[in-house]
This record gives sequence, structure tokens and C-alpha cells, in this order.
Amino acid sequence: MRKAVRNGILIDEDQAVLPVTLRSVQYAYSCYEALKLKNGEFVHLDEHLRRLDESLKGIGIVKTFTDEDIRTWLEMLKTAEGLFNETFRILVVGERPNIVFITHQETRIYPSSYYDEGVGCITYQGERFLPNYKTSNLLLSYLALESAEEKGCFEALFVNRYGYITEGTRSNFYALKGKKIYTAPDKDVLLGVTRIGVSECADELGLEIVYEPVYLKDAFLYDSLFISSTSMKAIPIKELDGKAVPRKSGDLVKELSELVGKWE
Amino acid sequence: MRKAVRNGILIDEDQAVLPVTLRSVQYAYSCYEALKLKNGEFVHLDEHLRRLDESLKGIGIVKTFTDEDIRTWLEMLKTAEGLFNETFRILVVGERPNIVFITHQETRIYPSSYYDEGVGCITYQGERFLPNYKTSNLLLSYLALESAEEKGCFEALFVNRYGYITEGTRSNFYALKGKKIYTAPDKDVLLGVTRIGVSECADELGLEIVYEPVYLKDAFLYDSLFISSTSMKAIPIKELDGKAVPRKSGDLVKELSELVGKWE
Repeated sequence: MRKAVRNGILIDEDQAVLPVTLRSVQYAYSCYEALKLKNGEFVHLDEHLRRLDESLKGIGIVKTFTDEDIRTWLEMLKTAEGLFNETFRILVVGERPNIVFITHQETRIYPSSYYDEGVGCITYQGERFLPNYKTSNLLLSYLALESAEEKGCFEALFVNRYGYITEGTRSNFYALKGKKIYTAPDKDVLLGVTRIGVSECADELGLEIVYEPVYLKDAFLYDSLFISSTSMKAIPIKELDGKAVPRKSGDLVKELSELVGKWE
Repeated sequence: MRKAVRNGILIDEDQAVLPVTLRSVQYAYSCYEALKLKNGEFVHLDEHLRRLDESLKGIGIVKTFTDEDIRTWLEMLKTAEGLFNETFRILVVGERPNIVFITHQETRIYPSSYYDEGVGCITYQGERFLPNYKTSNLLLSYLALESAEEKGCFEALFVNRYGYITEGTRSNFYALKGKKIYTAPDKDVLLGVTRIGVSECADELGLEIVYEPVYLKDAFLYDSLFISSTSMKAIPIKELDGKAVPRKSGDLVKELSELVGKWE
């Protein structure tokens, strides 16, 4: 039986459960993080812990554990399971004291064609509630992603009431034009850990990040489009709503994607 | 130990739990209903089953049980616990097959002063996602209600981007003026079962329901304001954002509230 951790106690994964009678469960009053273990090291753990903190504060969950607790619990699970490369999920439920679960699953590996040729995306009208925070209020993301998968696409990109593309259901979104990479302002999106990586790698390549809206109506006027996330790193978009996306600066995105892939 | 039902099986309530590793749990992909047992009879069960159906369809959950199943399971729990007056909660989680829980709790009885004098409410900027459906995507409602309670208020009323009051976190909202009761259009709100009752009772009193927005800026120009829900029936509002609400037609709302209280 696979293991998990509940508030510092190693348990069988089938014991990682939540009572449906709890108010915080009924209201989906919880936050989460997903992070990678790579070659035995937790990748960007500091950043994930910082963002978890921000999410909790953002929805008023008073933290009843420390960052050091999480580090200890992650190590506990890693050691108990003898893991080396894996994805971990931290879930904090807003009871007092908090209910904290750490679970793990295989790291998803995407086919190399995703990076070489790009992936298909759809657009989906909607705005995530409190986009800066990673909460369990995910129905919009669920529906958008289902809709993408029904159309054989990899990701759904949200278009907000003003007509601009903010982010994907589990990724940040970018549009490259010349030496500039446009991406939605911080206030509109999840501040992805890999978004920091994109920014650092862009810098290395002499590209400038511009935090300005990319309107859907103009999406096909850019040189190329791509998305990023912890699990994906940076993946080009080849089709948007069934229409081929230009790849005028294909090699530049490929170079950036390779750099981001190595960013740790 | 209190009992519950999971997909037709009577269980101890502490076994009414959901694995945190399920996608539908992580995305809060579920719907619910709350209904009353009164003097041994389930009140407006048909309407609650109909709405549950609409919620499930609304977010694409394919139903793997029948209405007859729910009726049987409710009776099973009622009989096992020897219940006569109680509130039941039905939760349907969007796995295939669905995970269905029925749990129960004491029916909340509000003090008579709530009906005589009214309750305090706050307003809260926000729009429920897919307001017609009763889903577990409830973070906005949680935050709004917390904010109300911090201010010693009973309910938070949502104000949408257009500046009009749509509904409360767990109630419908109405404004009375002369012989007309204004309430937000169907598309903007949960189609409360007791909202049907308000409409029928208004009819009996010769009042007309008008499905038109009540703008926050005009809220104090009405004769009186009130809210309704399955648990509350109809309760007048005495204060909104700390400011006294007029009760020009106080007796009319009292009469209506008494009728709705008896509506079954």
C-alpha cells in the first residue's frame, strides 16, 4: 500500500481522507501545492512553501504548522517510500488546527513531440476566483480542462471579461513578439513557480518580459505562443481553438523551452 | 455513533469520507442539496431532487443513481436513526460511478426575534460561478459569510459587477415596494426551493413578484428587504452594512414571512 502523511503521521494512502461533514470540506476551504522531487531533491521547495503561505493568508486560513514541518513530512514520505523522482502534493484544509496531507504520484512525463511541435489549446471564457492563490475552488478549471480534452487538446486558456488571455487551467501563458514576451499582469494569474524560471531564462536569452494583456483577437499576430508550469516547464502552442498558431520565432521558443527545462 | 448512507449502504458517520487523491475531490467537482424532515416527512423532496438533477447536468456529472435510490436511502437513514425532525444533506461527487453521501444534522432553529425584528446583513462584491447550480465550489460564499459573521451579521448579500444585489450566500434576496416584490432574474441566482414558496405566498397576499435587479445604491429606497431559504423560510433585514433598513411595510413582510413559514 502506497503511503501518505497526515499532520506528520505516516499513514496508508487509503487513510488520506476527509470527512464530508466538515465545513471546510463542504466549502472547499483549502489550498494546495504540487512540487517535484528530482534526483532525490525537492525542486524549488522554498518557492512552493512561500506560495502556499500566500494562498493560506489570501483566504484567511491561519497556519497551525511550520515550513519546517512540511520539509520534515516531505522527507519522511520520500524516505518511507524510497522515492527519487516523483511529484508530491501538499493539501492544507482550513480547519483549526489545519488538516495537512502530503500524497505522492508519479511525475508526468510529456512526449518530446509536445516540445518539438507544440500542443493544441482551446480558449475558455472565465476568470479564476482569487487567481493569485492555489485553492481547491477549481470547478471552472475542471470544466475548462474537460472541454479541452473533449476536443483532443492539452490545455484550456482562460479569456477574461475584457477579452484577454490570462492563464491556463494549470499553466501560465505567454506570447512572443520580436524580443518581447508578453504575459498577463500578476494580479490576474497564478504566480507560477516556473513563471519565475521563464523570466530568468528569458533574461539569459536577451528577451524582455512585458506584463501586459494579450488579447484573444490579437493572439495570431504574435510570433509564437507558449505555456509553462511545474510539470510542463515551457511548451509551445501549435493550435488555438483549432487554428494553427504562427511559429515565426520557432527556434527562440525552442531555445527558451530547453533553458527552462534545465532551470532548477 | 451517528449514521450516514454511502451509495445505499448504512455506515457510521466517521466513515463518510472522501479520498484526497481523487480528481473530483481535488477539483471540488460535486453537487449537494440540503432538505428538511418535518414531522417525519421530507419537505419538498421532489423539488430538491429536481434541482439536484439540474446541478449535476449543469456541470456535466453523469448520474449513476435514480431519484428512487435517493428516496430509499433517505428513508433508510431516517428509520435507522429514528428521526422525526432533522436536516439531511445529499452530496454527489462526480466520480463514475458517483459517490453519494447522505448525512444528517439537527435542524437549525432561528430565534423568533429574527422574524420579528429582522437580521443584519452585509454586502459582498462577487458573483457565484454558475449560480443556478448548487456545487461545492463555495469559497466565495465561505469568505463572504465569514466576513458577515466577523461583523456580527447573519448573512452576506452578493453585489455583482453591475452593482445589483443578486442573492445571499445561502439565501435569496427580495425588496418590497408597494405591492411589488423585486428579486434578481433567474439566471443570476440559485433557484431556491423556498423562492417558489415566497412566490406562491406573495400571490396569496396579492403581491406581484418582479424579476428585476435591485441595485445596492437604491436598496434603502424600498419599503423593506428580506431573504429566504429552506432553513430560514423568510426573514426580514433590519440592517444592511450597518445602516438601518426601512420597514415601511413591516406588517406586510411579517404576514408574508408567516405564510412562507407554513408553506410546505
